[in-house]
Amino acid sequence: MKSSMKLSLITLTLTSLLSACGGESSSQAAQSTSNAPKNIIMVVADGMGPSYPAAFRNYNDDPSTPLIEQTIFDKTLVGSSSTYPASGFETTKDEQGNVISVAESLSNSYVTDSAASATALATGVKTYNGAIGVDVDKQPLATVLEWAKSTNKKTGIAVTSQIVHATPASYIAKNESRRNYDAIANDYFDLKIEGKFKADVMLGGGTKYFLREDRNLKDEFVASGYQYVDSLSQLNTLEPNKPVLGLFADVSMPVALDSSDKTHLTSMTKAAVKQLENENGFFLLVEASQVDWGGHSNDIAYSMAEMVDLAATMNFLYEYVQKNPDTLVVLTADHNTGGFSIGHDGIYKWQPEYLKHLKASPRNIAEQLANNKITIAEVSNLIGFNLNDTEIQQLADISLVTNNSEDVKVLSKNYYKAVTNIIDNRTSSGWTSSGHTGVDVPVYAFGQGYTEFSGFQDNTDIAKKLFKLMGK
Amino acid sequence: MKSSMKLSLITLTLTSLLSACGGESSSQAAQSTSNAPKNIIMVVADGMGPSYPAAFRNYNDDPSTPLIEQTIFDKTLVGSSSTYPASGFETTKDEQGNVISVAESLSNSYVTDSAASATALATGVKTYNGAIGVDVDKQPLATVLEWAKSTNKKTGIAVTSQIVHATPASYIAKNESRRNYDAIANDYFDLKIEGKFKADVMLGGGTKYFLREDRNLKDEFVASGYQYVDSLSQLNTLEPNKPVLGLFADVSMPVALDSSDKTHLTSMTKAAVKQLENENGFFLLVEASQVDWGGHSNDIAYSMAEMVDLAATMNFLYEYVQKNPDTLVVLTADHNTGGFSIGHDGIYKWQPEYLKHLKASPRNIAEQLANNKITIAEVSNLIGFNLNDTEIQQLADISLVTNNSEDVKVLSKNYYKAVTNIIDNRTSSGWTSSGHTGVDVPVYAFGQGYTEFSGFQDNTDIAKKLFKLMGK
Repeated sequence: MKSSMKLSLITLTLTSLLSACGGESSSQAAQSTSNAPKNIIMVVADGMGPSYPAAFRNYNDDPSTPLIEQTIFDKTLVGSSSTYPASGFETTKDEQGNVISVAESLSNSYVTDSAASATALATGVKTYNGAIGVDVDKQPLATVLEWAKSTNKKTGIAVTSQIVHATPASYIAKNESRRNYDAIANDYFDLKIEGKFKADVMLGGGTKYFLREDRNLKDEFVASGYQYVDSLSQLNTLEPNKPVLGLFADVSMPVALDSSDKTHLTSMTKAAVKQLENENGFFLLVEASQVDWGGHSNDIAYSMAEMVDLAATMNFLYEYVQKNPDTLVVLTADHNTGGFSIGHDGIYKWQPEYLKHLKASPRNIAEQLANNKITIAEVSNLIGFNLNDTEIQQLADISLVTNNSEDVKVLSKNYYKAVTNIIDNRTSSGWTSSGHTGVDVPVYAFGQGYTEFSGFQDNTDIAKKLFKLMGK
Repeated sequence: MKSSMKLSLITLTLTSLLSACGGESSSQAAQSTSNAPKNIIMVVADGMGPSYPAAFRNYNDDPSTPLIEQTIFDKTLVGSSSTYPASGFETTKDEQGNVISVAESLSNSYVTDSAASATALATGVKTYNGAIGVDVDKQPLATVLEWAKSTNKKTGIAVTSQIVHATPASYIAKNESRRNYDAIANDYFDLKIEGKFKADVMLGGGTKYFLREDRNLKDEFVASGYQYVDSLSQLNTLEPNKPVLGLFADVSMPVALDSSDKTHLTSMTKAAVKQLENENGFFLLVEASQVDWGGHSNDIAYSMAEMVDLAATMNFLYEYVQKNPDTLVVLTADHNTGGFSIGHDGIYKWQPEYLKHLKASPRNIAEQLANNKITIAEVSNLIGFNLNDTEIQQLADISLVTNNSEDVKVLSKNYYKAVTNIIDNRTSSGWTSSGHTGVDVPVYAFGQGYTEFSGFQDNTDIAKKLFKLMGK
């Protein structure tokens, strides 16, 4: 054998060996030198503890097949996250939820609110319940969205709450209390990153915080080069390469069950992605804000319709990443809400079929009853199943002579409770709280760099990993 | 340069390259050609839905440090699992839980019992609630423990229930109903794999099912070469290389809170592993059976003490795998129990400090009260915190003239409810059910082949993966 032949053979062996270990590892090496995703889409499903996506799988199930169909959540689950707020601080709030005081406390609370958890997800730092983008000393913290902007990425938010609500606010504003909505809206205009506005795309509810008597932020944004839209249909005709403020409701977006567009989060997300695409990449925060609100109201029909919208959003993003593999999508919740359970009161069953045919939200049905716009007999049509005699009696038992609007409010509240109780008993849904509970939340990820989010992590780790992936 | 020198250099380069990519990948290559773990330890924490390990993290927290300490569960989380039973079957049970009938049903129940889920975990096949190792047609299914035995591994079970309870039974016995304990015990002796007993090590409770009037299975096992022990202290002096039947209680093991050995599952697991070690490897099923029973009783003090034992068991196994990297450990739950939540009734707080100083279980305290063995004033000492006036009144309100043992039973039940209510209010724990709920459960894995269990899976997948890892 000639030495040149030997060399060829050795080269061949080398190549084979490298290929054997490197079929994956050559791409891994490429990834580790440049693991940075071009685009990052962070999705927060507010209040979506682990029972909600499991319930959605059942809701989505085709009962005629032997196995339950996997959902987009099942396809993309990678781990879970703890959510507790800063240790040793106790937030006192008034009845409206305004933070009255934050005091050092000997004990830990272990249960977070949306502000503390969103601040953790946005900044990587634990803070007290109620804080927006500030630490326990009320000092401003740098967020992943701001970092993206400072590296010349486009940035945006698309949410179903008012856009100044706790989760989106924590990525942009700095305030000691989540309830200071006007001040938070001001921050959206006033706080800049290297002279640039923080968000190129802002879609959601909250007109009242931007068109105020004391300040018209909408006009200020428009004067600064933003296009302004106030109906979802306008999302199809946005001017490209021009920042956008889209406010589609006075406060929050309508609930999906009462909306003409039952997947308005999906519509906003599609428009945001289209608007943000550019050669430097983008960071987009998407929030399914109202899974949480259904949980607070112990209203599973409400939450499940919001989950349908979230699932459609995630399916769109999954398809998007197939075509744009340099994009990373991460989904998690900020906490669990309501202590919702699949099954209750010793019953080994959950019946989502009673959630599938609602023509209006339970709150809407209750309001119509309270305002004498419908009779109890008409509830069956709206709720999507025939009320039985007991259920009809439960509604009939709620009677009150309504002399004023306060009475109608009480009546409406009582009807709402009765309607959700009927649905809970039909479906076998359980609840432990009108507030949050402290279970770990699931983490889903796909696209470039998604393996970073595998296994257990804290909510602060999610921001830390995003900072790292963006080269900070 | 001489060609021999060139060759040396190339060899050096080759070695360096292989080392660079293969420091890990040479062991990965070894793993992929022979990924089969020598030993497999499957741990089932009955009823341990996601709230329990999160609560344990808080329970285990040192409040004097700013962050919450990670637990063995956090270190080893890899994914989650769905748990639903076979679709389209409805099990009717009587008040004692005996299966009366199994009927085909148009709807799915989505909420499993322990038997259906344990059968899924053991065999990879969905079945109806109540089934032990049989499918929906009541036909026997092959289990991972049986497969291990057929490949000449040693096999064992170590559980805190009676050893014929649903979870261990599903790995060994075949019965249409989990409640047929005597028949299940018979199966442990009568059913063989290639002429061999299915389990070399059986540790837990259940003497009454093995020493019966109609049959003395203990004697039959001893006559067949088994050693028999009936106290935990004997675990330290077991004869090596001899199979063992260890029954430490008439029915189930005592609850950890009332045991002299507060980590008896850990003690049994250590003994089982020691007894099973051999050159062909072993398969061991460990069950923390009573996390579930605390859940059924809505008794978080009970469940948390069982979690302490489980965590000690997992810590032991984690250390074991460091020394024996050819061992695989998988931990999951069969379902969630009780709809337990961290925080309740709108309170954003959970206070595990009220679970840390109990000197007896809540049920034990209640029984002592009902039997006039202690006064209400003495409860503070046993429960580990000073009852306030309201709590004392709550207990005082439970009065009944006890004329017979039935009265004492009712009184005891009412005191138990009152004591657990006091603990729930102190800790802010919520519950939705005396039964199971349908949330996905966490999956933990470490050791050889553990990555197989990453992400979302169904409980049947866990058995399928174990079969695959064992070469079936």
